[in-house]
Amino acid sequence: MSFFPASLENLIDKFASLPGIGRKSAQRLAFHILSLPEDEALAFSDAVVDARKSVHCCRICQNLTEGEICAICASDRRDHGTICVVSEPRDVLSIERGHEYQGTYHVLHGALSPMSHVGPEDIRIKELLHRVAEEDVEEVIMATNPDTEGEATAMYISRLLKPFDVKVTRLAYGIPVGSNLEFADDATLNRALEGRTEM
Amino acid sequence: MSFFPASLENLIDKFASLPGIGRKSAQRLAFHILSLPEDEALAFSDAVVDARKSVHCCRICQNLTEGEICAICASDRRDHGTICVVSEPRDVLSIERGHEYQGTYHVLHGALSPMSHVGPEDIRIKELLHRVAEEDVEEVIMATNPDTEGEATAMYISRLLKPFDVKVTRLAYGIPVGSNLEFADDATLNRALEGRTEM
Repeated sequence: MSFFPASLENLIDKFASLPGIGRKSAQRLAFHILSLPEDEALAFSDAVVDARKSVHCCRICQNLTEGEICAICASDRRDHGTICVVSEPRDVLSIERGHEYQGTYHVLHGALSPMSHVGPEDIRIKELLHRVAEEDVEEVIMATNPDTEGEATAMYISRLLKPFDVKVTRLAYGIPVGSNLEFADDATLNRALEGRTEM
Repeated sequence: MSFFPASLENLIDKFASLPGIGRKSAQRLAFHILSLPEDEALAFSDAVVDARKSVHCCRICQNLTEGEICAICASDRRDHGTICVVSEPRDVLSIERGHEYQGTYHVLHGALSPMSHVGPEDIRIKELLHRVAEEDVEEVIMATNPDTEGEATAMYISRLLKPFDVKVTRLAYGIPVGSNLEFADDATLNRALEGRTEM
């Protein structure tokens, strides 16, 4: 037997279907929605529909945008000869936060993962090859995550890019700035040693 | 500068305004919404509106319901002479899960808390007094939480109920079933000793 009204049960189910939200959290969120003034609850509902309907992928870099082309691809202040390849739209945000990188991006929307049945056809590799073939690209920076899937994806793409006259680079590995050698894991420390630079 | 499209930023803001959801979780949830098929995203949005519009408080016990009176208050298989007073609708669920209690409930929608400016006017105490005065009530079980606010609320209400010819009881304190004495805190152990029963 369910002890909540049907529409409340339904809302709890919907919240519980979101990633990282368990049954108890879903209940708390649903109760919060019920406690909101009606216009705020409606605004929440509208935000879901608006975002789902108006956000899609940039025709060029596949990042999320509301226009046909995203702000970065449309900007003439960015270096269109450099493409930074990332797995997810949120990774663009991470790199942009540094205010250092001036090139463009390419968002794969995933990483190769045989375990989860994600193959080359399932992520936006074709679109990247098309850009490298058609545009005047000098360098492709592989900025996929430093985990198994990210590494495999970077290796796979760098091999596909071999035939093109383009420099392919990978983000440096090493100890994080401001951290402590004591807390660095062995793999990171070894990569930091291998990648040591002259002072 | 915001790096996401406006409608996506808006959705992230909405998720981040929910209790216990930080900025990063809100981003993850918003990205998940974007990745849903359009009909599922619409169903999520509809669930919010439906629940907010059709759920309200039972006229008698103040628990959440879609009708005028909740299923428990409407049932003639429940003992309407016993009222179990709880703070939140989810507490009704907790007690119902035990399949033991056969009486009705009264949901206060909060607990007295001078620190958070919650006074007797802000929770549904008036409605409880009205029920005790008008209905044929034999026992009121105070089942507010065993914390400072819950205790104060139980004390306050039990004093208000003094003039009525009604038995007022409190849930027993003690060590949780299946737990270990080693892990019980001092206060709980002391209350378990005080409340010891003959075998």
